[in-house]
Amino acid sequence: MTTIDETHAIDLPCWVDNAMGHPDFPVQNLPLGIFSPANGSARPGVAIGDHILDLAAIGDHLPDAVRPLLGDDCLNRMLALPATDRVALRRTLSRLLCDRDAQPVLAAALNAQAHCTLHLPARIGDYTDFYVGIHHATNVGTLFRPDNPLLPNYKYVPIGYHGRASSVRPSGLPVVRPNGQSKAPDAAEPRFGPTARLDYELELGIWIGQGNDLGDPIPIKDAGSHIGGFCLLNDWSARDFQAWEYVPLGPFLAKNFHSTISPWVITPEALAPFRQAQPARPQGDPAPLPYLLDPQDQEWGGLALDLGVTIRTARMRDAAMPPFRLSHSRASAMYWTAAQIVAHHASNGCNLTPGDLLGTGTISGSDRESLGSLLEMTQGGKSPITLPSGESRTFLEDGDEVMLEARAHRDGFASIGFGECRACILPGRA
Amino acid sequence: MTTIDETHAIDLPCWVDNAMGHPDFPVQNLPLGIFSPANGSARPGVAIGDHILDLAAIGDHLPDAVRPLLGDDCLNRMLALPATDRVALRRTLSRLLCDRDAQPVLAAALNAQAHCTLHLPARIGDYTDFYVGIHHATNVGTLFRPDNPLLPNYKYVPIGYHGRASSVRPSGLPVVRPNGQSKAPDAAEPRFGPTARLDYELELGIWIGQGNDLGDPIPIKDAGSHIGGFCLLNDWSARDFQAWEYVPLGPFLAKNFHSTISPWVITPEALAPFRQAQPARPQGDPAPLPYLLDPQDQEWGGLALDLGVTIRTARMRDAAMPPFRLSHSRASAMYWTAAQIVAHHASNGCNLTPGDLLGTGTISGSDRESLGSLLEMTQGGKSPITLPSGESRTFLEDGDEVMLEARAHRDGFASIGFGECRACILPGRA
Repeated sequence: MTTIDETHAIDLPCWVDNAMGHPDFPVQNLPLGIFSPANGSARPGVAIGDHILDLAAIGDHLPDAVRPLLGDDCLNRMLALPATDRVALRRTLSRLLCDRDAQPVLAAALNAQAHCTLHLPARIGDYTDFYVGIHHATNVGTLFRPDNPLLPNYKYVPIGYHGRASSVRPSGLPVVRPNGQSKAPDAAEPRFGPTARLDYELELGIWIGQGNDLGDPIPIKDAGSHIGGFCLLNDWSARDFQAWEYVPLGPFLAKNFHSTISPWVITPEALAPFRQAQPARPQGDPAPLPYLLDPQDQEWGGLALDLGVTIRTARMRDAAMPPFRLSHSRASAMYWTAAQIVAHHASNGCNLTPGDLLGTGTISGSDRESLGSLLEMTQGGKSPITLPSGESRTFLEDGDEVMLEARAHRDGFASIGFGECRACILPGRA
Repeated sequence: MTTIDETHAIDLPCWVDNAMGHPDFPVQNLPLGIFSPANGSARPGVAIGDHILDLAAIGDHLPDAVRPLLGDDCLNRMLALPATDRVALRRTLSRLLCDRDAQPVLAAALNAQAHCTLHLPARIGDYTDFYVGIHHATNVGTLFRPDNPLLPNYKYVPIGYHGRASSVRPSGLPVVRPNGQSKAPDAAEPRFGPTARLDYELELGIWIGQGNDLGDPIPIKDAGSHIGGFCLLNDWSARDFQAWEYVPLGPFLAKNFHSTISPWVITPEALAPFRQAQPARPQGDPAPLPYLLDPQDQEWGGLALDLGVTIRTARMRDAAMPPFRLSHSRASAMYWTAAQIVAHHASNGCNLTPGDLLGTGTISGSDRESLGSLLEMTQGGKSPITLPSGESRTFLEDGDEVMLEARAHRDGFASIGFGECRACILPGRA
C-alpha cells in the first residue's frame, strides 16, 4: 500500500518557476513521461510546473535502480520496477527540486514543456478496456437494450474486452473520422462511409507496472502493487458502426481507429493522499466474490478524482471563445476498483506485462451534468446540445476539439492534475 | 499476387535427408521461424525436412535485403519486407538446397529439429480473432441463441474482436486449466473455480507483413500483399466462462488465458499453388460491399487446405495408442478470404503492424465429421464422444493433448504442411 510521506507535504518549497500551486504538476505530483526536447531524441522525463526535468541529464543524482533505464525511449522497464524503487526516485526528485543548492545542477536539465514533444510513455503490449462505470453501463444499456439495460453478470464480473494497442496515441494528435459500415434501422442493407455518430468517452487509464507470469493469477491483496500509474483515456467511438457490428463478439472497428491518452504517468505514490473508501454497494447488490474482495482495497481502493470534459468547435476557436464544459463526474462512480480490475484480468492466469494499458470504461455520474459521452448526453442523438457559439451537437463534427481532465483534491494537500488529454477531429479520407 | 515459379516444381532434387516427400517441409515449403539450437540463442531459421537451416550461418549467400535482419530474435523486420525480398530469399534458398555443390557449405548450418527449441516467430503487437467460419458461427449461434443463430450483420461484416497478444504461445507448451466465473442456469449466483468446459478451436492464423499507417485504410486489391504468412491457431476456450461473461462486450477471460500457434510462418509464396476461387456465396446472400470486393481475390483468394484435429488422452499415451482424429475440415469453409479480413480490419484506418496476428475463427465444415470444436461436436456437452480407449469426452480433461494440422494438396505439386500445433492440458492451480 502506498503511504503518505514527506513528499506530499503541502508547503514544499519547490524552486522551479510556477511549480508551486501549479494546477497539474506541483512538486507533489512528479509524473513520469517520455519527451523529446526541441531537436532531441525521446527520453524519460518528469513534469514539474511548466517544465520537464530530463532524467538522463541528472542521472548521477538518481537512485541506482533507475540509472540504467535513463537511456530508454519508453518507460516499460521503469514501470517494471518494484514500488520501492519508484518511491526512492520520487523522494530523491522531491528533495532535489526543493533544495536551492541543487538548483544550479538541475536547472540545465529543465526543458519548457511548450518546446517539447510528448510521446506515448510506454510501448503498450496489450490494451484492455473495462466497463466499470455503472451509470454509463446502465445509460448505454438502456439505449441498446431498453428492456434489459444492466445485464445479470454486471455486478459479479468486472466486464472488459480487449482493445487495440497499436492505435493509442498521446494527447494532441488529431483523430481522422473513420469510415465503416452502418445500417439505418429502416434500410435494407448497410452502407460504408464516414461515421455520422462520432463520440468521445471519458475514461481513466491504468498502467500495469510489474507483470505476472502466464498461469499465475494476481491475488486481490497484491493487485494494487501491480499498478504503475494512471492517465486519462478518450475511447473515441463510432456509435453507428458499434450498433451494427457489436453482436455477438463486442465492439471492434467502432473503437480501434484511435484512442487518446494523457502522456504523463501519474504514479500511485502521487495519488496516495487521494485514496478513499470504495463507495458502498447499494443495498441488495451482491458482495464481490472472494477473489475480488479485500478489506483494505474496499477501504482505500477508491480514488477522489474530479473528472471533466470540454469541447471547443472550430467556430469557437475562430471567435476566441473558451472551451465549453460538457460534463463533470467523479471516479467514485466506478463500480469496481483499479485493484479489482487487475485481479480479475489475471484471475484466469492471463499474463499482464509492464506497460499494458487498462481502461476503466466511461465514467458517468448519476445525473445529467455528469455524463461521460455524447451518446448519453443526447440520448442517442435525440436531444441535441446547444453550445455557447449557438451551434448544436448530437455527435462530434469535424474541427471539434475534445479535452478530458482529471484533478485530485483533498483538504490539507496540494491538488494535482493529470495534464492534457485532447484531440481535434479531422475529416475522413475519401 | 503470388505466382507459381520454379521453386514450386514437384521434382526439385533437394539434397537434405528426408526433405523430398516430407509431409510438412519439402523444399517447396521453406517456412520461416525463430529457433534456438541446443545451448544456442534464438535466431531465424527455415524448416527443411526434419532440419532447420540457420540463416545467420549462411548469411553471405543470402540476398542483401535479409542479411541485416539475421541477428534478430524475431521475424518482425523480416515480415515487414516487401514480397519481392521474400521471393528473392525463397529462390535463393530453393536453389542452394537443390544444388549439390552448395551442400558442403550449408550442411554445417543444418540443425536437427528434434534438438532445437522453437519460439514465437514474431513479437505479436496486436492479436485479433475473426469469426469467418460460417458453419461454426451458425452452430455456436444455435447453442447460445437458438432463435437467432446467425445475426443480421454476419454476411456483411467480417466479424472480429481483439484478443490477447501476451498469452499466445508456440506449439508444445502446456495449457494450464484456467479459473474463472461461471453460472449454472439454475444457480442463484456464479461460482469461481476451474473451468468445467475447456475446449479447443481449430483456426488458421494470418501474420501481417507490411503494415499501414494510422488513418490509411488498405484497399482490398492490396490487402493480400500485406499478408506475411499463415499458421495454425488453437483458440483455447472456457465455454462456461464465455457463456456468463460475453454479453455485452464479447469474450474476454474465456479466451485470453492461452492461445497456441504453430511456430512456422508458411509464406504466401509457398501457398501460391494452392490458391483457389473463394466458394460462391449461396444464392440469395448479399454481395460483399465494394470495399471488400475484388474480382482477383474472389478468383484466387481461397486456400485449398485440409485441416484436422486429433486428441490423445493420458490413458491413450500410457497404452501407446495413436492420437484419435476428432474431425477434418477445409479452409474453403471460410465465408471471407484472408484479404477481406485484412481490408476490413484496416477499413476504418486502424493501423496493422508487421507481426500482428489475425485468427480466422473456428473453421468447421457443414457436416458432423468436420466440426472444429468440442462445443459443436458434443452439442454443448449434451452428446459425449467415445474415444478408442473407451473414455468419453464432452470437454477436455487434464492430460488430454490436442493437435491441429493443416496440409495443402494439389495434383502436380508437392504437398506441404504447417507443422505441429499441439498442447497438453495441465490441472488448474489452487
